[in-house]
Amino acid sequence: MPKVSKRTADMPASAIRKLVPFSEAAESAGVKVYHLNVGAPDIKSPDCAVSAVRGRCDKLHHVSYTNSAGLAELRKAMCEKYYAKIGIELQPSELLVTVGGSEAFAVAMQIAAGPGEEIIVVEPFYTNYQTFAYLNGITLKAVHSDIDEGFALNDISGFEAQLTPATRAVLISNPCNPSGKLFTREEMLAIGEFCRRHDLFLICDEVYREFCYTDEPFFSAMQIPDCGQNVILVDSVSKRYNLCGTRIGCIISRNQEVMACALKFAQSRLCPPLLGQFAAIGALDTPDSYFEEVKAEYIRRRDCALSLLNDIPGVYSPVPYGAFYTVARLPVRSAADFAKWMLTEFRKDSSTVMVTPAASFYKTPGIADDQVRIAYVLEVPQLEKAMAILAEALETYRDF
Amino acid sequence: MPKVSKRTADMPASAIRKLVPFSEAAESAGVKVYHLNVGAPDIKSPDCAVSAVRGRCDKLHHVSYTNSAGLAELRKAMCEKYYAKIGIELQPSELLVTVGGSEAFAVAMQIAAGPGEEIIVVEPFYTNYQTFAYLNGITLKAVHSDIDEGFALNDISGFEAQLTPATRAVLISNPCNPSGKLFTREEMLAIGEFCRRHDLFLICDEVYREFCYTDEPFFSAMQIPDCGQNVILVDSVSKRYNLCGTRIGCIISRNQEVMACALKFAQSRLCPPLLGQFAAIGALDTPDSYFEEVKAEYIRRRDCALSLLNDIPGVYSPVPYGAFYTVARLPVRSAADFAKWMLTEFRKDSSTVMVTPAASFYKTPGIADDQVRIAYVLEVPQLEKAMAILAEALETYRDF
Repeated sequence: MPKVSKRTADMPASAIRKLVPFSEAAESAGVKVYHLNVGAPDIKSPDCAVSAVRGRCDKLHHVSYTNSAGLAELRKAMCEKYYAKIGIELQPSELLVTVGGSEAFAVAMQIAAGPGEEIIVVEPFYTNYQTFAYLNGITLKAVHSDIDEGFALNDISGFEAQLTPATRAVLISNPCNPSGKLFTREEMLAIGEFCRRHDLFLICDEVYREFCYTDEPFFSAMQIPDCGQNVILVDSVSKRYNLCGTRIGCIISRNQEVMACALKFAQSRLCPPLLGQFAAIGALDTPDSYFEEVKAEYIRRRDCALSLLNDIPGVYSPVPYGAFYTVARLPVRSAADFAKWMLTEFRKDSSTVMVTPAASFYKTPGIADDQVRIAYVLEVPQLEKAMAILAEALETYRDF
Repeated sequence: MPKVSKRTADMPASAIRKLVPFSEAAESAGVKVYHLNVGAPDIKSPDCAVSAVRGRCDKLHHVSYTNSAGLAELRKAMCEKYYAKIGIELQPSELLVTVGGSEAFAVAMQIAAGPGEEIIVVEPFYTNYQTFAYLNGITLKAVHSDIDEGFALNDISGFEAQLTPATRAVLISNPCNPSGKLFTREEMLAIGEFCRRHDLFLICDEVYREFCYTDEPFFSAMQIPDCGQNVILVDSVSKRYNLCGTRIGCIISRNQEVMACALKFAQSRLCPPLLGQFAAIGALDTPDSYFEEVKAEYIRRRDCALSLLNDIPGVYSPVPYGAFYTVARLPVRSAADFAKWMLTEFRKDSSTVMVTPAASFYKTPGIADDQVRIAYVLEVPQLEKAMAILAEALETYRDF
C-alpha cells in the first residue's frame, strides 16, 4: 500500500476544526451547540449581490472560464466603486481576483518567500498562515503581542529581534484574527518603515477592514507613504459583504513584479469562480447603510460578549476594536482539554458551547494554553445564553 | 526594493497563455483570431445547471461557507446520480469537492509526493502538472509516447525504466490533454499492476471522461481490480458539463489516509465555491441526450479538423479518441516561432490562427519543437476557416 508523503502526513490539521467531530457527535445526540468557534457570520448577504447572480444567470448560456486575473469588469469596478471610496487609488492592473482571501495570502507568502526563508508574524496570528508556511518550507518568526497589553505593539524592537538574513516579509492581519486588535496608524507606519529599511515585503491581510469599531477611519497598509513596492494587500469580498461562500478575494500590489508573479499562480489554477464574481460585482452596489447596520450589530454583540466574559471569575479578554473575534484567558490549565470537555461532557439544559483553543494561534509554545478564541457571531440573546453556559462550565470544571 | 522569491521568479509562466499578449495585440488591431489554443469550449452549459443556481438564489439569504469537503448534498448526489451510473460505486466519504480539477490534481500530487520525490508522467502531458511539481519540489520523470505511434503505450518497460527509489506515483490524464489519446483497458490494467507492484499511487486525471469517441465504454482507473488503495482520481464537474467557470471538481480515493490528507488541504482554503456547487447539483440532472449531442458535435469537429490538418502538406496528426485536443507535427523548425509569427505578422483576410506550441507538454527537450496542440473547440465552419488560414500560413512561412 502506498504511503502519503511525509510532508502531507505531518501537515497540521486545522486547529479551528479539530474539535468538529466532537461537536458533530454532540449535535447528533440532540445537544444544542452554541458555535463561538468559527468566523462564519449569520448576517444576511446584501440583496444586490444575490440578485446580481440571479439576473446574470437569466441571460447566461455558458458558464465559461474568465481571465485568470478575474473579469475585467469586476477588477475595474472594485477599483472605482470600492477602493477609490476608501481612499486607495488603484489601477485594475494592480489587483488580481483570487479564490477567497485564502488564495491571496497563500500566493502572497510564496511570492515573498521561498523554502528556507522567513516571514515575521505578530502572534497571535491566523493559524492558516502557519499551514501555508509549512507547505512551502517557510519559517514563521513571531513577534509577541500580549493579551495583558491589549495585543499592542509597543515598539518595533520585537521586529528587529526577529530579523535574520533569511527574513523576506512581515505578515499581519489588520484587524487581527484572532485577537480583534486594530493596528494604529502609528503602528502601521512603524512596521512600514521597518519593511522599507530592510527591503522586506509587508503582506497585510485586511479582510476585516469594514469591521472596525472606532470612530477613526481605518488606516490601510496601502496608505503608508513610500511603501508601494513593499506592500502586498490581501483582501476579501467574501468576508466584507457576508458572502463567504462566493470565494472571491484579491491580491493587490503596486509592485509590478509581484503582480506578474501573482498572474503566474493565477494561470496555474485557470480562473476564479465566475458565479462568485457575479456576486462580487453586485456587492459593490451595497449601500453604506448595510455596513452601518452590520457595524452597529457587531458592536452590540461585542459589548455583550466582552462584558459577560469579563464578568466570569478568572476570565480576562481585552476589548477588541475590529473583526468579530476576541481572545480570552480562562481559569483553566488547558483550554484545549476544557473545550473538548464542554463538547463531550458538559451540558446545561441540553446545551453547550464550542470555542477554539488559542494555543495554535501562537508560535511560542506554552504561553497561551489557557486562552481561547471566541467569535461573537451570534445574535445577542444567543450570545447571552452561550456566555451563561460558559460561566457555569468554568465553575464546574477543575483541572488544577 | 524587496525581491520576489527565487522560486516564484523562476516559476515557468503558463506555456498555453504565453502568446496571449500577441493575440490581444492582434485583436486590438482589428484582426480576427481563431482560437485553437485553449480548451474553452463554446458549448452551451446544461439549462438545469444554470436554473439550479437561479432557483436556489431565489431562496438564499446568506452565501455562507460550506463544509470544506463540499456540500453533503452534492457529494451524495455525485455518488448516486453520476458515479453509480458509470459503474463506480462510491461513498460520499471517498469524494471531496475541490476548486476545479486544478485543485484536485495539485492536492493529489502533494499527497503522493513531497520535495525531492518523483512522479512518473506520460509525455506529452498537461503542462500544469509541471507547474505544481516545480512549486512542490517534485521531479517529473517522463515515459515517452510518440506521435508516430498515435501516442500508444506499447508496454510497461518505459515505466520500469523511470522507476527510482524516489518514485511515489504515476500521473496520467485519460483521455489525455494534449494528445487526445484514450488509454485502453489493457494499458490501464498494466499501469495499475505496475503501481500496485511498486506501491505507487496512480493519480488519474479523468476530467475528459465524457468526451470519448469510441463505442467501447470508458475504462476508469477506479475500475482497475485490487488497485483501490493506489488510485487517486481527479475529476471535474466544470469540464464535464461545460461549466468551466464554476470551478467545481473533485478528488476521489478509496484510500482513507489519502482522503484524510485531502481534507487537511481543503480546510486550509476553507471551502469550495457555494454557487458553483449549486450549479453542480443542478448539472447532475443533465439528460443523456445532452452528452450525445455534445459527443456528436465534437466528432464532427474532430473529423473536420483532423482531415483538413492532415491534408496540409507536411502536417501529421494522429486521430484522437478523446478530449477535444490533438497534437500535430508541422513542417517548421520551431512551432513556437511559427505560432508567434501567425499572431504578429501573418494575416489572411484580416484573420489569423492561434495554436499552442507543444514543446512544453514534453519533459524531454527538443523532441517536439515542431509540434503544436490544437483544441478543436470551434464550430465546423469556423474550424474550416481556421484550417485554411493555417494551411496558407504554413505555405508562406519558411524557417528552414
